[in-house]
Amino acid sequence: MGEFWFYCPGLRPGAVELDAAETRHALRSRRVRPGERVALFDGCGRVGWGATQSSAAGGRRAAALVVQVERVDRRPRAGRELTLVVAACKGPRLDMLVEKCTELGVARLVFAEFAHSVVRLRAEQAEGLRRTAIEACKQCRRAWLPEIELGPGVVEAAARATGPLFVAEAAAHATALGAALAKARGSATVVVGPEGGLTPQELGRIVEAGGRPAHLGNHILRVETAAIAVAALWAGGEAEQNGTRAQPNQ
Amino acid sequence: MGEFWFYCPGLRPGAVELDAAETRHALRSRRVRPGERVALFDGCGRVGWGATQSSAAGGRRAAALVVQVERVDRRPRAGRELTLVVAACKGPRLDMLVEKCTELGVARLVFAEFAHSVVRLRAEQAEGLRRTAIEACKQCRRAWLPEIELGPGVVEAAARATGPLFVAEAAAHATALGAALAKARGSATVVVGPEGGLTPQELGRIVEAGGRPAHLGNHILRVETAAIAVAALWAGGEAEQNGTRAQPNQ
Repeated sequence: MGEFWFYCPGLRPGAVELDAAETRHALRSRRVRPGERVALFDGCGRVGWGATQSSAAGGRRAAALVVQVERVDRRPRAGRELTLVVAACKGPRLDMLVEKCTELGVARLVFAEFAHSVVRLRAEQAEGLRRTAIEACKQCRRAWLPEIELGPGVVEAAARATGPLFVAEAAAHATALGAALAKARGSATVVVGPEGGLTPQELGRIVEAGGRPAHLGNHILRVETAAIAVAALWAGGEAEQNGTRAQPNQ
Repeated sequence: MGEFWFYCPGLRPGAVELDAAETRHALRSRRVRPGERVALFDGCGRVGWGATQSSAAGGRRAAALVVQVERVDRRPRAGRELTLVVAACKGPRLDMLVEKCTELGVARLVFAEFAHSVVRLRAEQAEGLRRTAIEACKQCRRAWLPEIELGPGVVEAAARATGPLFVAEAAAHATALGAALAKARGSATVVVGPEGGLTPQELGRIVEAGGRPAHLGNHILRVETAAIAVAALWAGGEAEQNGTRAQPNQ
């Protein structure tokens, strides 16, 4: 699996310090030792390789782990980007949604307000969701953090869709989302509503904005399952279109 | 969303009793009242409709809720069935795997032993996983419980695969799993190994048994994410092949 990855927004060649959370994670959970090779990513596509300083003062109680970065590479941003405009769900399911969608390569998560929303996120929750995304990036070696936005109305969010716009809908006339996404050559946006569904008004305005209803299969899916399924279909389609893939490590 | 669903393995027309767990769920969580219409499923494809008895003695403290079942239908078993042979993961991630794979229609979950398995399930855990699957069936109105098997070796489990056999692998020569599954007209089996991967010996023996390496995209996925992604690709492919889908409710 290669080196451990840590998040370091100020990444550059030379000596850099990890923040308190990453230092704790490195020293206590990962038991990184002085002189050990690690990889750092800045969440904006840059990845650096280096070694922890052997003079790391304080040992496992150090306030900031220093890494001597030797080399910084830049990962290209994916040409095909998936935006999910999704209803918020509760507690652990929300974290799971962010974690899995990050692992599956979603570029942008917009937690929008729907008429039937049961969960409304508070601005303070953004930092927790960002932390979840950082942890998922470390786990799956993703150099770009997903963008996470809270609170726009669904119609507003859909109106600024990048690429073709789909709305997950059980309607009989809907096309299969997997096939539709596989045909989308550039970026795409998918709206996943709350469990109570979209109102006819919301659906009408999304269709006016160019949105097409598309379904995900035979079962009734929870919000987070639907979001993860959309991300998996996208990741599968991407793998297929690329032919060869990036190396899983480095 | 229609009536509430409850699990009732002895389902038949006439008066049937829900067991203690389902009675508690109905009366305390769902606050089902006497005379309310509910749906019952037996986990083997039968669904019944009826009303709770108005004489339900004991109110919210009743030991067994009685439902007067008027009609029992039988749902056909899916012609295309996905079997996942997967490494076990820890605690909440394991439950999440079972819940999401049930929602996404996986027919059979085989938690197999791999050389690099980090989690080995105990026989006592089967009941908890079955409960998770039952709850997911109720949520998504699925009439067939997934089969859940614990403990066979991965080579043995792969050898009795139904349909074409794939093994999720990051190898450069692997084909895209989404495309491969979309082409599988009947059932299929997919092996998802532990985070440490399969040994060359395991992979060799699965390939000897007819298994083909197939990949899931660009990122390193946790075991449960990979399993859910496979299920989503399958559900998406199924929706596409069916053309029209079953009604989401009833």
